[in-house]
Amino acid sequence: MDQKGYRRESFQSSTSDEDMLEIAGASLDFPMADDDPPLDREMGGFSSYNGGEMNGTSKMMDFLEEPLPGVGTYEDFNTIDWVREKSRDRDRHREITSRSKESTWALIHSVSDAFSGWLLMLFIGLLAGSLAGLIDISAHWMTDLKEGVCLAGFWFNHEHCCWKSNTTFTDRDKCPEWKSWSQLIIGHGEGAFAYILNYLMYVIWALLFSLLAVLLVKGFAPYACGSGIPEIKTILSGFIIRGYLGKWTLIIKTITLVLAVSSGLSLGKEGPLVHVACCCGNILCHLFTKYRKNEAKRREVLSAAAAAGVSVAFGAPIGGVLFSLEEVSYYFPLKTLWRSFFAALVAAFTLRSINPFGNSRLVLFYVEFHMPWHLLELVPFVLLGIFGGLWGAFFIRSNIAWCRRRKTTKLGKYPVLEVFVVTAITAILAFPNEYTRMSTSELISELFNDCGILDSSKLCEYVNDFNSTKGDDLPDRAAGPGVYTAMWQLALALIMKVFITIFTFGMKVPSGLFIPSMAVGAIAGRLLGVAMEQLAFYHHDWVIFSGWCSQGADCITPGLYAMVGAAACLGGVTRMTVSLVVIMFELTGGLEYIVPLMAAAMTSKWMADAIGREGIYDAHIRLNGYPFLEAKEEFSHKTLAMDVMRPRRNDPPLTVITQDSMTVEDVETIINETTYSGYPVVVSRESQRLVGFVLRRDLIISIENARKKQDGIVSTSIIYFTDHSPPLPPSFPSMLKLRSILDLSPFTVTDQTPMEIVVDIFRKLGLRQCLVTHNGKLLGIITKKDVLKHIAQLANQDPDSILFN
Amino acid sequence: MDQKGYRRESFQSSTSDEDMLEIAGASLDFPMADDDPPLDREMGGFSSYNGGEMNGTSKMMDFLEEPLPGVGTYEDFNTIDWVREKSRDRDRHREITSRSKESTWALIHSVSDAFSGWLLMLFIGLLAGSLAGLIDISAHWMTDLKEGVCLAGFWFNHEHCCWKSNTTFTDRDKCPEWKSWSQLIIGHGEGAFAYILNYLMYVIWALLFSLLAVLLVKGFAPYACGSGIPEIKTILSGFIIRGYLGKWTLIIKTITLVLAVSSGLSLGKEGPLVHVACCCGNILCHLFTKYRKNEAKRREVLSAAAAAGVSVAFGAPIGGVLFSLEEVSYYFPLKTLWRSFFAALVAAFTLRSINPFGNSRLVLFYVEFHMPWHLLELVPFVLLGIFGGLWGAFFIRSNIAWCRRRKTTKLGKYPVLEVFVVTAITAILAFPNEYTRMSTSELISELFNDCGILDSSKLCEYVNDFNSTKGDDLPDRAAGPGVYTAMWQLALALIMKVFITIFTFGMKVPSGLFIPSMAVGAIAGRLLGVAMEQLAFYHHDWVIFSGWCSQGADCITPGLYAMVGAAACLGGVTRMTVSLVVIMFELTGGLEYIVPLMAAAMTSKWMADAIGREGIYDAHIRLNGYPFLEAKEEFSHKTLAMDVMRPRRNDPPLTVITQDSMTVEDVETIINETTYSGYPVVVSRESQRLVGFVLRRDLIISIENARKKQDGIVSTSIIYFTDHSPPLPPSFPSMLKLRSILDLSPFTVTDQTPMEIVVDIFRKLGLRQCLVTHNGKLLGIITKKDVLKHIAQLANQDPDSILFN
Repeated sequence: MDQKGYRRESFQSSTSDEDMLEIAGASLDFPMADDDPPLDREMGGFSSYNGGEMNGTSKMMDFLEEPLPGVGTYEDFNTIDWVREKSRDRDRHREITSRSKESTWALIHSVSDAFSGWLLMLFIGLLAGSLAGLIDISAHWMTDLKEGVCLAGFWFNHEHCCWKSNTTFTDRDKCPEWKSWSQLIIGHGEGAFAYILNYLMYVIWALLFSLLAVLLVKGFAPYACGSGIPEIKTILSGFIIRGYLGKWTLIIKTITLVLAVSSGLSLGKEGPLVHVACCCGNILCHLFTKYRKNEAKRREVLSAAAAAGVSVAFGAPIGGVLFSLEEVSYYFPLKTLWRSFFAALVAAFTLRSINPFGNSRLVLFYVEFHMPWHLLELVPFVLLGIFGGLWGAFFIRSNIAWCRRRKTTKLGKYPVLEVFVVTAITAILAFPNEYTRMSTSELISELFNDCGILDSSKLCEYVNDFNSTKGDDLPDRAAGPGVYTAMWQLALALIMKVFITIFTFGMKVPSGLFIPSMAVGAIAGRLLGVAMEQLAFYHHDWVIFSGWCSQGADCITPGLYAMVGAAACLGGVTRMTVSLVVIMFELTGGLEYIVPLMAAAMTSKWMADAIGREGIYDAHIRLNGYPFLEAKEEFSHKTLAMDVMRPRRNDPPLTVITQDSMTVEDVETIINETTYSGYPVVVSRESQRLVGFVLRRDLIISIENARKKQDGIVSTSIIYFTDHSPPLPPSFPSMLKLRSILDLSPFTVTDQTPMEIVVDIFRKLGLRQCLVTHNGKLLGIITKKDVLKHIAQLANQDPDSILFN
Repeated sequence: MDQKGYRRESFQSSTSDEDMLEIAGASLDFPMADDDPPLDREMGGFSSYNGGEMNGTSKMMDFLEEPLPGVGTYEDFNTIDWVREKSRDRDRHREITSRSKESTWALIHSVSDAFSGWLLMLFIGLLAGSLAGLIDISAHWMTDLKEGVCLAGFWFNHEHCCWKSNTTFTDRDKCPEWKSWSQLIIGHGEGAFAYILNYLMYVIWALLFSLLAVLLVKGFAPYACGSGIPEIKTILSGFIIRGYLGKWTLIIKTITLVLAVSSGLSLGKEGPLVHVACCCGNILCHLFTKYRKNEAKRREVLSAAAAAGVSVAFGAPIGGVLFSLEEVSYYFPLKTLWRSFFAALVAAFTLRSINPFGNSRLVLFYVEFHMPWHLLELVPFVLLGIFGGLWGAFFIRSNIAWCRRRKTTKLGKYPVLEVFVVTAITAILAFPNEYTRMSTSELISELFNDCGILDSSKLCEYVNDFNSTKGDDLPDRAAGPGVYTAMWQLALALIMKVFITIFTFGMKVPSGLFIPSMAVGAIAGRLLGVAMEQLAFYHHDWVIFSGWCSQGADCITPGLYAMVGAAACLGGVTRMTVSLVVIMFELTGGLEYIVPLMAAAMTSKWMADAIGREGIYDAHIRLNGYPFLEAKEEFSHKTLAMDVMRPRRNDPPLTVITQDSMTVEDVETIINETTYSGYPVVVSRESQRLVGFVLRRDLIISIENARKKQDGIVSTSIIYFTDHSPPLPPSFPSMLKLRSILDLSPFTVTDQTPMEIVVDIFRKLGLRQCLVTHNGKLLGIITKKDVLKHIAQLANQDPDSILFN
């Protein structure tokens, strides 16, 4: 195979702490906030991985019986070892179970330990639901604040204000208590001056909110920006980013999310809500030792929290669980599925009891359609799917190109200015157009809505022919002037949304993609739906309509088209499949409309995949160089383990430690001269027969500790990794036994193993590294980073874009 | 650890063909039908596992360039090697992709190959949906045939017959065209004699149907009996049972399922429908080379087919997919999730367009509740959960005890007699009681139903007080005499169902458990619901009702209790969780009722798990000794690989083949003297350094073939597994190069590896065997059977109950 794209370098599993932070700073583009609580700072030192030690056959007695603090923990920006973490949890579990027979107290402890997972889910559900409710209510109020204020109490939003009103008024929206800014300042709301004043106030508020948001993010919690889903995917795959899910991130993200949404920027709160829920999950983990101390168990909780986040974002608990399963999670045991579902449900019902939309509905866009769809309508639905796919691919390309430019040019240094400019442009363009002035979720809601008889919105201004109306069923009608105006405005809104979203997603404010994507799709869908409706009305004698659409029948539901379009665009951007359809299904509640949604989602995914394989989250993961080993894509190249392993053919041989012949000084020299995160231990240099693997961090801590606390350990002391050490003459310095930190079961593959199998092993077992042997002799090592670099290289990408271990 | 329960025996990975069949015959309890199409007979010989061979670095030229037919296939009752199968599929895919650039035809082939999966799903959905419709219609007709016949045409069922009727009649069920047997034979339907005559005809028809079913099963397709889910779980985990999913099984199972359901036995069609759908999937796989020739790919299709089966059984596509994910499938990549969903949806819509229930509904038990539930009602819901858990545990224990008795005593030799007796008892007990006489699904439907004003069934005979009725809302009312009669009859029906089901499940007819379990739960739930309702009506001043249940309000919905009870019992028996709740959710369509369902399902699972960990399917898998490595249970013991591997400490050393020093004769001796399914290849006996692993079957086929076709291969020819062989003097017999059948990447673990990790590797990678090394030297081998025996032993079960490899 071609290896010329590869830089010659010895395998390097970890750079030093400072290096890492530097790289991190460059790549993540924000400084490390020191006051963030660490994701794993409290992950104490109990490491009993070498289960064999306790086994009767190899009982050992050395000075390290008590585990050292620090042994078994991880550096920031490193990958965890799933196998080790899971082993540690099983050890813990075994210990509790065996103790539970001893006393009642231990039994209670054991039972409470078993139920702590459920309790934790309950708390996460409650907290995530409450926060979502809080965010909804505040964002609603602040969005309305841009237009006016309630005299009955400034804390009421427009709708609430008019409910409280005692006086009667004709238009539901125009109650005397609610004053627009022009009414408040110059006393009336008519005329050009009032319009300009309102315009100005709108822009000022928008700028105020967004600037406050970006300053808060910049000042207090740099990790609070963006949607957070790419990072959460990476964290769930086993990466450590301290503080990313900490309490400061939670507080700042909650506040700035409200500000960002209220500022009218083209972004949504759904993605960030997943981040918020995961923060809740991570913080609540600290209540239970089981989860606080184990990185693998904690990730199970975070998977469930992500489900709860989507559940409250859309009011779709089942869809939320499937989203977590399909899109976010990496390691998702079935036990977690059931718990996630519980968390999602609790969150959804908490939100509903807060009732932020005031309609007792769980879902954001509740729709009820009455008419079945016809098989021929699949043609426009598939067209919407194609549009969604094209838009998704276009959006991902442009957004990634823009984000790359931001990273590489000076642009990235002025995040506040960037937010200011984008907000200003958005607000200035948005105000004149009714459909961009309203909040995006309101817009989607209106687009999804099927026109009833009493609907007064412009979109429903049809030419009414009451003679043909039977009961609730409205036949297709000719569009009135209002509909035509709305069409123009929607078309303009579509263009604006398409372009402004590209620049918005990735700025230093919390920003979700779901809502803008859905808005684009919903507008396109509604436009197509109305066009189809008018076509069917005026040309119902055409052959394509004959048989199912007679005159005076209600054949076309434009709201359904909007919904299908929204699903298509969302699918094109995120490449979700089942979870997308299920979320949409939960919005409508009718199995009837699954087929159109599925057709659109499938077409959209195929279309978008044909242009570029990556969804937006994966694209951002790659952009940031996170070590994420995609579990969905099959590795399809024909390379072997020997092509990937380090050292390469002409490099110096692998740095190894022998089991019973190296002194403390020798080992310290190796540690100082290399930066690898671990070293294989062999029987002897000549035989190269593998005994085990020892981690650099554990080695440093153990030697340091021994030098301090153990008598007679000097530089010439020999380090033994063997089970039994030979009796030494008294003149020799005492020896240092380190078998307890040795991993006696390192994973090995032969040099002839196809890389597809190696990749599979890395994915499924969650390895950090794997040793390569040939005919029983140690040859080299493959780390997760090597695998990722290899994949990047084969995909003709820069292998050095993988930054972390 | 205690090893005394272990029988001394050298590791034995496979017995010979004949042995295997004998064991199989004894355990599966039915003869092997020779005319069944093999599950994998056509799985041709292309085996290019050793991907490394094609790599430039180790290009080799030997006589086995062309793969031999048979190399790379599996014996019946053996476990497949997932890693090898997946590698083969990737090779195939690579080949097609690389060829696609050569010609247009190859490009079309490549595209059609990519879409063949979707096409296959479409076919499976269509076929499974059609068969389900056919089964529904036939079973409905034949169930009614037990009571009477339609004069307007014997092929109409009761309901259909009365629709066709032109004359008007008062009672919907009593149209002049429908004649009960007594009316037909003696001319009237009144009086004791007519009753006895109807009774007799009912019993005779039931016996006729069930005997026909058992004879068909016995004579043509022994695999068609039972629910099939335990076997499908095992097959999906990688086991091979030829003919289990063949066309004869499909045909006979479809026919006998109708007969068994119509005979009125206490069984359902839901489980067998999964088997039927999987048969469809397996047969349709033969249309596409990609799936026909690859055992791993085929299992992906079967997972999707199982989802389609549940989807048509309940009209719940999402629930079906989750059922397949949670309960049935073993290896379920996300790609399959999306395809399963597609198959499930197509199946559901096919069934709906057939419209077997005549109500345009997708679901079997459509219910619509109007009243919300109160938080206090969670207490009775949890009680139902406890009942469900207790019933589930009780049922599993008794059923397994009975099935074990059937296996071990003479009882098993008279399956026809057994079916005769059970049917006779069921029919005789069932007829007098209205609620057992009707088909079980009708019963469940009636129990789920909320009483409306116009409902005329006995269960809805309340004392009406029309003054307090407002619109559609019916307040709680006093129960009339009809309700009390119904209660007694339901209580009797409950007792009968509980006991008769134990003896029914496991007989030699197709039998599903879902419906009987749900019936038990629904009866219990309805009884509790009515009791609560009456309590609330008469004692609405009690403190527990105050605040939410005032006089004349509709507080309690007994139908909801029935539904919750059904979920609880089904959960107790199968231990389903998410899929159960989602199936139930799809039946009601209201998110509102998820919480009660979830509370009951959770309680039920906890309760049942506390008594016995296994669900009914796992219990049956264990009873039959199938090699199923449970993926859900954590392995929690502290043993090491060295405790499990063969050879044991005092046994003779492992049988190995050296890479370049053994003659054909030596190898043939080893093959004849041992029965292992494969042999490790080492550098030399002294060094014991591992080179690879060769399968017995491949070795036999290759040597046989070489002796036949290759000149100069005699018993003294040396077999080389090395890359390059030394030049031989012309006097030597020519050598046999067998590197192409050598697996150069066998999985190895060290002897100190904790078994929990080994079990994890076996599960996640789907291994058949794993070699054990110590300091680079080969020590022993662990097969899947060894792992299963070890687990059984640690659980204090008989390790010899694991029969297959």
